[in-house]
Amino acid sequence: MVKERVTVVDIAHAAGVSKSTVSLVLQGSSLVNEVTRAKVNATIRELGYVYNRSAANLRQSKSKIIGIVVNDLTNSFFAELAVGVDTVVQSAGFVQFLANTNEKIERQREVVASMREHGVSGLIISPARGTEAADLAPLVDSGIPVVLVVRDIADAGVSSLTSDNHAGAMAAVRHLIERGHRRIAFLGGFHDTAVFEARMRGYREALLEAGLDAAEALVIGSAPSRAGGVTAIEQAMMLSDRPTAALCFNDAVAFGVCDGLRARRLEPGADFAVIGFDDVIEAKTAVPALTTVSVDPQGMGQRAAELLLKQINAGKAEAEAIIGSVRLVVRQSCGAAIERRTREALS
Amino acid sequence: MVKERVTVVDIAHAAGVSKSTVSLVLQGSSLVNEVTRAKVNATIRELGYVYNRSAANLRQSKSKIIGIVVNDLTNSFFAELAVGVDTVVQSAGFVQFLANTNEKIERQREVVASMREHGVSGLIISPARGTEAADLAPLVDSGIPVVLVVRDIADAGVSSLTSDNHAGAMAAVRHLIERGHRRIAFLGGFHDTAVFEARMRGYREALLEAGLDAAEALVIGSAPSRAGGVTAIEQAMMLSDRPTAALCFNDAVAFGVCDGLRARRLEPGADFAVIGFDDVIEAKTAVPALTTVSVDPQGMGQRAAELLLKQINAGKAEAEAIIGSVRLVVRQSCGAAIERRTREALS
Repeated sequence: MVKERVTVVDIAHAAGVSKSTVSLVLQGSSLVNEVTRAKVNATIRELGYVYNRSAANLRQSKSKIIGIVVNDLTNSFFAELAVGVDTVVQSAGFVQFLANTNEKIERQREVVASMREHGVSGLIISPARGTEAADLAPLVDSGIPVVLVVRDIADAGVSSLTSDNHAGAMAAVRHLIERGHRRIAFLGGFHDTAVFEARMRGYREALLEAGLDAAEALVIGSAPSRAGGVTAIEQAMMLSDRPTAALCFNDAVAFGVCDGLRARRLEPGADFAVIGFDDVIEAKTAVPALTTVSVDPQGMGQRAAELLLKQINAGKAEAEAIIGSVRLVVRQSCGAAIERRTREALS
Repeated sequence: MVKERVTVVDIAHAAGVSKSTVSLVLQGSSLVNEVTRAKVNATIRELGYVYNRSAANLRQSKSKIIGIVVNDLTNSFFAELAVGVDTVVQSAGFVQFLANTNEKIERQREVVASMREHGVSGLIISPARGTEAADLAPLVDSGIPVVLVVRDIADAGVSSLTSDNHAGAMAAVRHLIERGHRRIAFLGGFHDTAVFEARMRGYREALLEAGLDAAEALVIGSAPSRAGGVTAIEQAMMLSDRPTAALCFNDAVAFGVCDGLRARRLEPGADFAVIGFDDVIEAKTAVPALTTVSVDPQGMGQRAAELLLKQINAGKAEAEAIIGSVRLVVRQSCGAAIERRTREALS
């Protein structure tokens, strides 16, 4: 079934050029003129030659692969992030390989090792929960350019691109307070992540500056997923002094909160104010359209890719920590002003 | 910044074994006893040795990578499919690299070529729109095991794993007819895909066997996304003789149809019956929970991975075409019986 392998010599012979010229074309060298390059490339396509990248990598210690490692592929935030990375690396002539760790540090170790073994030019990593600087040390020591996205890791010694989660959460809660809400919940997310900690801190500070009580009972963690949002709002609605609004850990949780409200015959936006975090594609088309703190996952992917390419081209990894600004996008789901309280009939 | 490279000789010296023993451990050979293997592995970790997979691939022509190439990563169906593949390849000691083509044949050519160059052991591909057998010929000729998923390609000469889209669509439309619906729309999807064609055929046959008219106007294509669903239902509701129910191309479209209905103050499940296709995770927790034809994306990913591993282990690619069965999962979104017609106030 396997065809006999076409060699560089076959190409040179068919194209009527030297073997070195074919090699230069394969390496993308600028020493070969356009006409010759076109002729060689046409012959390569015609004969079906496959460039042996493994051998080339050994010779050049350089591939045209960018690796991206994400912690939860089922969250559309990360799919959108990867699509953003792809648009940039593609125009730079790279191919992106993605791997999913499903929040498992051991799997992260395996996929990172595998990507290193395959000679990726650089890595973009959204680390699994609980990843520590020591887990990344072998990778960092190897000198391969690395950009951490979404979750930063203290003292990792590599570049990171995160969002101003603290400021975003403050803006969202201030908006809810301006609309008259006094009992505002923080729903969803895992307590042990830096992202959770920063959003929570923003939530608390906005409450404190308005002289409001940040009651422990109003902070309800859950998986950062749609199903987690359903669970969190169910728990919130069982409190004796119910909230009238919520800032959710992310958009997935916010959609679940909307689902859970509807299951109780409460209309999100009319009977209860909901704000998400991320601004995934679906936030705009959902009904009600989701008010959310825009992190712009595709844009974040693009910026991460640009940062990584800069380091790859510079040939060394100068660590930079970039904190991207965020903005509150007011749509319909936060429309519940306080006078339209949770309907008594359903209390 | 780059540490001096640790060699096999360094490992052998530190662990007090021969160089050949270290090599055998690196190759996962069963000739080395447990105690020695553990000692060598501990030394490898301690010294931070990185196995040079490029060199190993050249020697062994074998990697431990499975490539998966999908056509639209922003559709959660494909993220779930990839997660299913991952669970199986992981237990078989492989790592999965994913690439997204965004429905572009040229990008598909690039990522497939790149994966071949990196010596993947096998490929799972959900082909981009318009892919023809000729596009896959170089890959097929190379003898690398390939499994097509979701979309089959006639005469491609490789294994495929698809779903019984025809039977699924028939079951869904029969269910709507049993509930009394006579004006049933088919919403969303691109006309030029085999999946669309099969689902459409099932839709038409179910209408014909019930003596109903399959009016052209009731078939409204759109992007197979949530936003596409919003557009399609808007168009359907402008018809003079409106439908009362719809089979949607996939779950993403169905969610968009629900959004579009709500934007018109129609309650999906109460005022209009909606059935999706795929059964993504979110179908169960949505409100109303989505009635859908279950394709079970994670299960499909698992079966595709098993099929591919079987071919990798057999050392040759015997083409098999597997058509997985599907089943209608009745939840709430199809609850609108015909007597609860579209409310007059909103006509």
